[in-house]
Amino acid sequence: MADKPQNSAGLRGQSAGTTALCTVGKTGSGLTYRGFDIKELAEKAKFEEVAYLLLKGKLPNQAELDGYITKLKGLRGLPDALKSVLEQIPKDAHPMDVMRTGTSMLGNLETEESFDQQQDVSDRLLAVLPSIICYWYRFSHDGVRIDTETDDASVGGHFLHMLRGEPASELHARVMNVSLILYAEHEFNASTFTARVCASTLSDMHSCVTGAIGSLRGPLHGGANEAAMAMIENWASPEEAEREMLGMLERKEKIMGFGHAIYRESDPRNEIIKEWSQKLADDVGDSVLYPVSVRCEEVMWREKKLFCNADFFHASAYHFMDIPTKLFTPIFVMSRLTGWAAHVFEQRANNRIIRPSADYTGPEKSEWVPIEARD
Amino acid sequence: MADKPQNSAGLRGQSAGTTALCTVGKTGSGLTYRGFDIKELAEKAKFEEVAYLLLKGKLPNQAELDGYITKLKGLRGLPDALKSVLEQIPKDAHPMDVMRTGTSMLGNLETEESFDQQQDVSDRLLAVLPSIICYWYRFSHDGVRIDTETDDASVGGHFLHMLRGEPASELHARVMNVSLILYAEHEFNASTFTARVCASTLSDMHSCVTGAIGSLRGPLHGGANEAAMAMIENWASPEEAEREMLGMLERKEKIMGFGHAIYRESDPRNEIIKEWSQKLADDVGDSVLYPVSVRCEEVMWREKKLFCNADFFHASAYHFMDIPTKLFTPIFVMSRLTGWAAHVFEQRANNRIIRPSADYTGPEKSEWVPIEARD
Repeated sequence: MADKPQNSAGLRGQSAGTTALCTVGKTGSGLTYRGFDIKELAEKAKFEEVAYLLLKGKLPNQAELDGYITKLKGLRGLPDALKSVLEQIPKDAHPMDVMRTGTSMLGNLETEESFDQQQDVSDRLLAVLPSIICYWYRFSHDGVRIDTETDDASVGGHFLHMLRGEPASELHARVMNVSLILYAEHEFNASTFTARVCASTLSDMHSCVTGAIGSLRGPLHGGANEAAMAMIENWASPEEAEREMLGMLERKEKIMGFGHAIYRESDPRNEIIKEWSQKLADDVGDSVLYPVSVRCEEVMWREKKLFCNADFFHASAYHFMDIPTKLFTPIFVMSRLTGWAAHVFEQRANNRIIRPSADYTGPEKSEWVPIEARD
Repeated sequence: MADKPQNSAGLRGQSAGTTALCTVGKTGSGLTYRGFDIKELAEKAKFEEVAYLLLKGKLPNQAELDGYITKLKGLRGLPDALKSVLEQIPKDAHPMDVMRTGTSMLGNLETEESFDQQQDVSDRLLAVLPSIICYWYRFSHDGVRIDTETDDASVGGHFLHMLRGEPASELHARVMNVSLILYAEHEFNASTFTARVCASTLSDMHSCVTGAIGSLRGPLHGGANEAAMAMIENWASPEEAEREMLGMLERKEKIMGFGHAIYRESDPRNEIIKEWSQKLADDVGDSVLYPVSVRCEEVMWREKKLFCNADFFHASAYHFMDIPTKLFTPIFVMSRLTGWAAHVFEQRANNRIIRPSADYTGPEKSEWVPIEARD
C-alpha cells in the first residue's frame, strides 16, 4: 500500500496550508468570513466593511470605515501609462485578459518594493480594478476616455457609474454591494490557490493577483455566471426552458451554475442573490428571465438533485442592471481581490514554498539517437 | 490520528498529479527530460531540439528540426500594440514585470481561442519572449527601437544579437544553448505548478504562462542567479570571498545559489554550467570572478555540506557574456516556457480542477456588533 500513488487528482481533500479567513461548507451555516456568517454580512455590511474585515482582520468602527472609504475613493485614478496600455487593447479582447494585463502593467508603475507596502498595494488594487475594466470598455466600445475619479461612496456604485456614465440607483448600488460581498472570499479555490503558490516564492502582490486573474478566467472557475446567462437568455418562457434543459440533460451537455466542488446540499449564497434578482425583476417589470431562472432551478433539482450555486441567479441579477454579460467575471475579480490579497498576507506571514511532487509516468531511460538516424 | 491535520506545509512530498516530462533527483543521474539524461542533452542537443522533445513528445529528425527552427524564426516579430505597451514601461521596472506584462498583453492580441491552438501559441511564445525583453530593454535603456526579426538560427543567438546589436560569437551562442537546455524543465516546481493550477481551470495558455512568470519572479524561485551575482561581484579575490562568506555564515545570512529542495547530494546541472563558465573565464581572461566562484563552492561544501545548484555558476557565465544581471531571470523564462507549456498540455489532457483544502485556524463563530458599538 505504501508504494501505491495516492489518488491525488486535483488535490481534492488534501490540505495545502492553513487559513483563518474562511470556512466553506463546514457547518450548517455554510460560509463564513473570519467567523461571520455570509447571510449576516450580506444583509448588514458594506462591501468596504467586508474588505476591511478580510484585509485588516477585524470589523472597522465608524471612523475606521469612513477613513477607509475615503482612502479608496482617492485611489481610483489611472496613471497615464496604464491608460495608454488599455487603449492598445482591442474591443474584441477577453475582458479577463484586460484585467490581467491592467494589473500586471500597474505592477511596473507602482511596484511593491517591500511587504510593508502590502496593505497599500491591496487597497490600491481594490480601488482601481473597476477603473481599469471600465476605462478599457468605454474607450474600446464607445470611443470615450472616461474620468475614473467619481465621488461614489461604494466600489459597486463607482463601477456602475463609470459603466453607464451616470450614478447608479440606490437599488442597483445595493445589489452590487451584496454581490461583491458574496464573491469576496472562498478559501482555497483555484484562483486563490494560484495566488498563494505565487506568494510562496515571495513574489510581489501584482504577480499574485495577475496569476489569480488568469486562473479565474478559466471556464471551470470564474466564467459560470456568463455561461448561465448565455443559456437562459435563449429561452422565452419557463416551458421552453424546461423543454430545452431536459434536452441538454439527455444529451449530457454541461449546464453551468449548478452544483459545487465543496457544498453538498446547497450554496448559501444562492438564496441571497436569488432574492435580489427577484427584486430587480420586479423593478424592471421582467416576466421572462426571472421565471425562466426559477424553472431552471426546479428542473435541475428535480432531475439531478443539483442546486443553484452563487453564479446562477447572478446572471439574471446582473442582466437586470444592464451589465454586459462579458463583464460578469471582471466583477468577480473586483470582489475576490480582497480574498486573494488576504490569502497572500497569510501565506507571507507563515511561508514555505509550495512545491508538491508528481507521480512520474514517462520512460525510465531514453537512449540518445543521433539526429541522422532518427525516423 | 485521523483527526490530526497533516504536516502539509508547502505540499512537500505530496503528489499533485502525474507527469511524463521529467524526473528530478530520482536516480543517480539526477535529471531527465522524457527519460533523456540532462548531461547528454546539454552536450549533444540544440535547445530547439529539446523544446521539440518537451512540447511534441519526441526528438525531431533533421527535417522536423529544420522546419521547427524555421518556424520559430518566423515568429519573432512584435505586434505594434505590444511595442506600444513595452514603450510605456519605465526603465527602472523589474524585468520580470516586463515579461509578465508582455505575455499578458500578447494574450489580448493573439488569444488562444481553442486548445487546438496550444502548440502554435506555445511556439509563438518561445520565439517572441526574447523579443519582448530585448525590445523593452533597448528602448528604455538606449532609446533604440530594435528590429526583433533577426536571422539567427537559435533562440539564444537571437537574444544576444538583439541585446548587443551584433551577432553572438560561436562560443556565446553555444553557452546560451546549454543554459537554455539546463533551465528548460524541472517537474512541479512552484512556477510550473502555478501554470498547472491555472490550466486546471481550463484557462488559456497566456494566463498560465503569465502566472508562471509571476511565480518565477519570487526570490525563493527564479532570482537566485541574480542574487549570487550581486554577492560575488563584490569580492576581489578568493581570499576575500572566503573571509566574507564565513562572516555571512556566522551572521546566518541567506546565501543564494546553494542547496536545493529536492536534490540531496548535488545538482547535476552545476558541473555542466561550471565547465562552461570556466571556458568563458579563459575566453575573457578573467582572473577574479571565476576563482572567487570556485572558492565560494569550496567554502559552502566544507562549512555546510551545501552544493552549488544550477544558478550559482550561471551568474559568472552570464556575466562573462556581458549580460546585465537584471536580465538573468528573464533568460530563465525564455527557457522554462517550454516546460510550462508542456505541463499545461499534460494538465489539459487529463484534467481535474486543482482545488485543495485548508486547515482552518480562525474563529468558530464571530458575533456581529453594530458599527456604532464597535471599539
